[in-house]
Amino acid sequence: MATMKVHGNVGSTATARVLTCLYEKDLEFEFVHVDLRSGEHTKEPYLSLNPFAQVPAFEDGDLKLFESRAITQYLAHDYANKGTQLICPGRQMAILSVWLEVEAHQFHPPSSKLVSELAVKPMFGMVADTAVVEENEAKLGQVLDVYETRLSQSKYLAGDTYSLADLHHLPNFLYLKGSRSMQLFDSRPHVKAWVDAITSRPAWSKLLALKNQK
Amino acid sequence: MATMKVHGNVGSTATARVLTCLYEKDLEFEFVHVDLRSGEHTKEPYLSLNPFAQVPAFEDGDLKLFESRAITQYLAHDYANKGTQLICPGRQMAILSVWLEVEAHQFHPPSSKLVSELAVKPMFGMVADTAVVEENEAKLGQVLDVYETRLSQSKYLAGDTYSLADLHHLPNFLYLKGSRSMQLFDSRPHVKAWVDAITSRPAWSKLLALKNQK
Repeated sequence: MATMKVHGNVGSTATARVLTCLYEKDLEFEFVHVDLRSGEHTKEPYLSLNPFAQVPAFEDGDLKLFESRAITQYLAHDYANKGTQLICPGRQMAILSVWLEVEAHQFHPPSSKLVSELAVKPMFGMVADTAVVEENEAKLGQVLDVYETRLSQSKYLAGDTYSLADLHHLPNFLYLKGSRSMQLFDSRPHVKAWVDAITSRPAWSKLLALKNQK
Repeated sequence: MATMKVHGNVGSTATARVLTCLYEKDLEFEFVHVDLRSGEHTKEPYLSLNPFAQVPAFEDGDLKLFESRAITQYLAHDYANKGTQLICPGRQMAILSVWLEVEAHQFHPPSSKLVSELAVKPMFGMVADTAVVEENEAKLGQVLDVYETRLSQSKYLAGDTYSLADLHHLPNFLYLKGSRSMQLFDSRPHVKAWVDAITSRPAWSKLLALKNQK
């Protein structure tokens, strides 16, 4: 079997999503660094791997994929027998799909906006826009109210076992941890217990170790 | 088998996504109108069906789902033998997943913003913000440049047959058709041929007929 390749950047949240999934699935891969500062992702040959000029891109033999959530779903389905089981059979998969979509359409927009304001802007010497931060903290707070109820009924989002739906939330914690916005998570007990559970998994520790090496 | 129920509003793009999928799959269902103007979606009992106070919500016997893209994926997978085949087996499914994610993360954000400015605001007597329209037309144009290349290689996004990845794009055309932004589609020949192909399907005509009845 050909080695899998991840083309990405360890500072990128979408790259972190794919790497964390590979660690959970206990799959070997080659990491190919893409230099975002020099704009390597906006030029050939990278554009042939991801025409939207974003990281990551992924290769498994002759199969070439992009979009982090499509890559993780491929790994979860096609390597179902390796490492952590991240999906489930039958109708329970429909519930898992609901929470995959909730991450993409409810959680991701405000939380990634907060990452951008509170972590990315300061890296480039810019100041966070307080109005944007407050607006997105209010939106995220409403989303987390729903999560608090859900997580009082089951330990994880799709049920009592860890799944891809939980994993997809991890990347933004790379930058939210330590920020003022963590208070939104810490003040909701079931949400806090869930964040503690998903961020203490060995696969996430491996991702943090890789990021800190670079 | 219990009848499926869709709780939604025919003016809602997310509801249209689910209804179009049901028509493609040739599945019988009961449509339960949710009155958005009176805020029915923000109160019980509706909140028990969708805690994010959005339409649609879906029931199939005792299975309750929300998030339109999770509902369509359930229908495509669990009723694979009914109506149009909207998914595919094996590794080709990974390619289809890429284009499902492209719709959600590249196409939907600018196109839904244009729907909001050019169609929703006027319905409420408000004026479109020209700067927002121009910004999102520029973003959508860049996305459609990638689509133009892709659709010069295959008739549909995931390959040579119609799939769920194409279907997911339909709802915003409810409002984009007839708007100034259609020029972005019409000026790209492969994109135009694709829009013509997906909007001329009988399932989409049924959706338009239902909307016009109400």
